[in-house]
Amino acid sequence: MAIANADLTIRELHAAVGRSAVLTDHQTLAARSNDRSAAASQGRAIALVRPRDTAGVSAVLRIAATHRCPVVPQGRLSGLAGGANAVEGAILLDMTGMNAILRVDPVEMVAVVQPGVITADLAARAAREGLFYAPDPASATECTIGGNVATNAGGMRCVKYGVTRDSVRSLEIVLAGGEVVRTRPPTVKAVGGLDLTGLMVGSEGTLAVITEITVDLLPAPGPTLGVSASFSSVDDALDTANAIVAGPHRPSALEFCDAGVIAALRAKVPESGLPADAMAWLLVLTDSAAGAGEDVRWYTQTARAHRAVRVDSATDAGAVERLMVARRALNVAMRAVRGGSLNEDVAIPRSRLGELLRRLDALSARRGVPIATAGHVGDGNLHPVILFDPHDPGQVAAAQQAHIDVLAMAQELGGTATGEHGIGLEKLGAVDAELGPRLRSIQRGIKAVLDPQGLLNPGKKL
Amino acid sequence: MAIANADLTIRELHAAVGRSAVLTDHQTLAARSNDRSAAASQGRAIALVRPRDTAGVSAVLRIAATHRCPVVPQGRLSGLAGGANAVEGAILLDMTGMNAILRVDPVEMVAVVQPGVITADLAARAAREGLFYAPDPASATECTIGGNVATNAGGMRCVKYGVTRDSVRSLEIVLAGGEVVRTRPPTVKAVGGLDLTGLMVGSEGTLAVITEITVDLLPAPGPTLGVSASFSSVDDALDTANAIVAGPHRPSALEFCDAGVIAALRAKVPESGLPADAMAWLLVLTDSAAGAGEDVRWYTQTARAHRAVRVDSATDAGAVERLMVARRALNVAMRAVRGGSLNEDVAIPRSRLGELLRRLDALSARRGVPIATAGHVGDGNLHPVILFDPHDPGQVAAAQQAHIDVLAMAQELGGTATGEHGIGLEKLGAVDAELGPRLRSIQRGIKAVLDPQGLLNPGKKL
Repeated sequence: MAIANADLTIRELHAAVGRSAVLTDHQTLAARSNDRSAAASQGRAIALVRPRDTAGVSAVLRIAATHRCPVVPQGRLSGLAGGANAVEGAILLDMTGMNAILRVDPVEMVAVVQPGVITADLAARAAREGLFYAPDPASATECTIGGNVATNAGGMRCVKYGVTRDSVRSLEIVLAGGEVVRTRPPTVKAVGGLDLTGLMVGSEGTLAVITEITVDLLPAPGPTLGVSASFSSVDDALDTANAIVAGPHRPSALEFCDAGVIAALRAKVPESGLPADAMAWLLVLTDSAAGAGEDVRWYTQTARAHRAVRVDSATDAGAVERLMVARRALNVAMRAVRGGSLNEDVAIPRSRLGELLRRLDALSARRGVPIATAGHVGDGNLHPVILFDPHDPGQVAAAQQAHIDVLAMAQELGGTATGEHGIGLEKLGAVDAELGPRLRSIQRGIKAVLDPQGLLNPGKKL
Repeated sequence: MAIANADLTIRELHAAVGRSAVLTDHQTLAARSNDRSAAASQGRAIALVRPRDTAGVSAVLRIAATHRCPVVPQGRLSGLAGGANAVEGAILLDMTGMNAILRVDPVEMVAVVQPGVITADLAARAAREGLFYAPDPASATECTIGGNVATNAGGMRCVKYGVTRDSVRSLEIVLAGGEVVRTRPPTVKAVGGLDLTGLMVGSEGTLAVITEITVDLLPAPGPTLGVSASFSSVDDALDTANAIVAGPHRPSALEFCDAGVIAALRAKVPESGLPADAMAWLLVLTDSAAGAGEDVRWYTQTARAHRAVRVDSATDAGAVERLMVARRALNVAMRAVRGGSLNEDVAIPRSRLGELLRRLDALSARRGVPIATAGHVGDGNLHPVILFDPHDPGQVAAAQQAHIDVLAMAQELGGTATGEHGIGLEKLGAVDAELGPRLRSIQRGIKAVLDPQGLLNPGKKL
C-alpha cells in the first residue's frame, strides 16, 4: 500500500471515529502486533482504531473497503495461535473499548454484551443476579467474550457445558463494507435461516466483525466440589475418565496430567501433595446444585475401582482451591523446566488417548525433547507441551519438528490439530491435511461471499 | 426439461444404481410428492431413486449435474413445511433405504447412523446399550434422523437437551456434483475449520445430501416423572414456567396448553381430568437420574406459589403415561373441533408470550376463526392452531389470512415464524421479512458456493 493512500485512510478514520480513537505511533502498533503465540506478525499495521460503538466499526469497515485496507479485529491478545497478529498495511481494530454489559435478563436467561467485555466480568455479573455464564476458558480473567466467540474458546467446563458456540444465541455483526446485520432472532429456537451464528463462531475474524453478542445464561450451579486421584498407570486414569464420562454423575471438569506434568507441578507447587511415583493424575470437579456429595462419592469409588493409588476428596471451598492452585500452576511449572515450551492443542477420539500418549513418549525420545501432557481428558482435548531450552538452537529446531509431528499425529488418530485454540497463523500448515482441498475451497468460497475484497483478517485460518 | 433428456437421465440412473432402485411409475411419484404440510408440490418428478449407499448417492448427484436435473432429498415425508415436496423435473432421492445404525460406541458416546434410520429406532438402540439419544421430535416413531438433521428438528425435550443441532457432531455429505466429504473430525471439540456441520443442520437439503451422521449420546437418564398443573389465568401459568426455567431443577419437558386446547382435549380425552374452568395447563416432566423426586416437589411448590388451581404429581410410569396420552392427543383433538387446522410454529422471547397469547385472541376475534395454542413454553416455541371448517370457503380464506398474520406477529414480537418446523415452501413468504435482504443474499451466496448449478432442493428455504 502506498504511503499516500495510508495517510488518506488515516485522515478519513480521524473524521469518522475521532482523532483520539486512532493511534499510529510505533510503540502502540508494536505492542498490539502479536498475541501470545510464537507466530510472527505479518507486517506493520498503519493504525490502531478503538471504536466506541457499532456505528464506529461500520465506519471503519466502510473506509477500509474504499481503500482496500486489511482489518484485523483484536481483543486483549490472549490468543494462542496468532489469529489477532498484525498484517501489513492493516487497521488494527481494537474492540476492547466496546466493553459494556448491555443487559442481563433473568426471564430470557440471556446476557447481551459488547465484544470487549472480559469473560470473567460477565461471569461475575451473571453470578450477582443468581445466574451462570458457563464458558470458562483458562484466560477468563483477561480474555474478551469477542475473542472467545471468534475462536470458539474452550476450557475446563466444556465437559459439562460445551464450548463457547453452545452458549452463543445471536450476534450483531458488521459485514465487510460496513453493513450491520443480526445473525438470527434472539429466541431459544429459530430455523428460519441457515446457521450464520454458528458460522461466525470460530471464524477468527475472517468473515465479519462481531459488535454485540447474546449469550445463554443458566441457573446458578452449586458450589464446586472435587476429587483428586493419582494412578500408577496412564491407562488406569484414562479408564477412570471414560467411566466418569459414561456415568450418571456428570462432572463440571475432568482434567488429566501425565508423569511429566506431575513432576513439574511437584517442583513448582510442593504443597500440591501429588505422589512422587504417580504416572497420572485426574482432577474431577462437580457443581451440581443438588447431589454434589453423591457425585464426589461416585467419582471416588470409580477411581478406586480403576486402581487409583490415592484419592482425596475436596468437599469445601478451601480444599477445592488447593487443587485448583496446582492445576493453574501448570503453564508456569512447565515453562520452568527448560525455559521454553510449545503448547499443543490436539483433540482426538477418547478411545485413542492411550495410544496418543504412548506415541508422544516415542516422539519425545526420537526428537530428544521432553513432552509432557495435560488437558481436558473428558473431551479428548489434550495439551502436549514440548519443552526445550530456548538458548539451544538444536533444541529449538527439535521442538519445532516435534510440533509438526504432534499435529500430524492427532490427525492420524482421527482427530484435529486444534480443539480450542484455533488456527490463526500457527497451524495453517496443518489445516490442509485435516480438511482436505474441497472443504478448504468451500470455506474460502464462503469467505468470498461475506468478504469479497478479502480484507477481514487476511491470511488467517482459511 | 425435455422428455428425451429425462429418458437419458433415467437410463443413466438405471446403470448407476440398478434398475430396481429407480421408480418412475405415476403412483409412486404421486405418493412421494408431498409431505404433511398444506404446501403444494412444485411440479412432477421424473423418477424416485432409492440409493443403497453413499456411492449410489454420489452417482445420482453426478448424473443430476450432467443433465442439470434438480434433486429433492426425502425421508419419510413427515415434514410440516413442504421441504421435501417434489419440484418439476426432479429426481426424488429417497434416503429411507439407507437405514443402518452403523455403530453405537459407549466410549466415544456417539452413534454413527445412516440418514434413513427412524429416530425412535436410534433412541431404542441407544437405550439398550444404557445410553440416550436426546432429541425427541413429536414424530419420532416415523421420522428419520436425516430429516431431523435437515430441519434441525425440535420437540418436547429441547428445553433440557437443546435442538437436533446440539446433538450432531459430524456429517458425511455428498456435494452437488457427487464429491463425498466429511464436515469435521468426530472429536468432541474441533476448531480447525468453519462450522460446516452446523451450516448443514437445518439447511433442508439445499446445500448437500447427508449420507452419514455422527450424533452425541448421553448416559441414560432416570425414569420420567412429572407434574400436571392447571391455572385460572394464562399469566399464572407463564410465570410458573419462567420460574421453573430459571430454577435449579431443570425439566426435561415444559409444555403449555391454553383454554382452547384444554377444551378440545376434554372433548377428545375425557379421562384427561383437566378442569373445565382451567385457562391454562402446564405439563412439567423430569428425567433426572438422581433427585427426580425433589424436582417434582419443587415444580409442585412453584406451581402452587403461582396460584395453580390444581396440581397432580405423576411419580410412576402409569401416571406419566396418562398425562402423555392427553398431550399426544393434541393434534387429533384440535382437528376434530372444526375439521381443518393450520399448525403454526412461532418462537418468541419468553417474556412476551403473554402478549402473544393476548394478540392471538384478538386476531381470532378479528378473523372469525378460533385459534388455540399449545407448545414448548420453556423454549418460547408455541404452536398456535388455527381452526376452520374446510368446506366453508369463507373460513378457509380467513384461516389463510390469520396464518399470515401469526407469522408477522411473531416477527413483530422479536421472534421467528418457525422455531422447529422449517421454511420449506410454506413459510418462504415470511422469511424475507424475518432475515432481511442482506442475510438472504448471504444465504443464497453460500448456497451458490456449495451448489453452483442450483440443483439441490431448488425453491426451498432460501
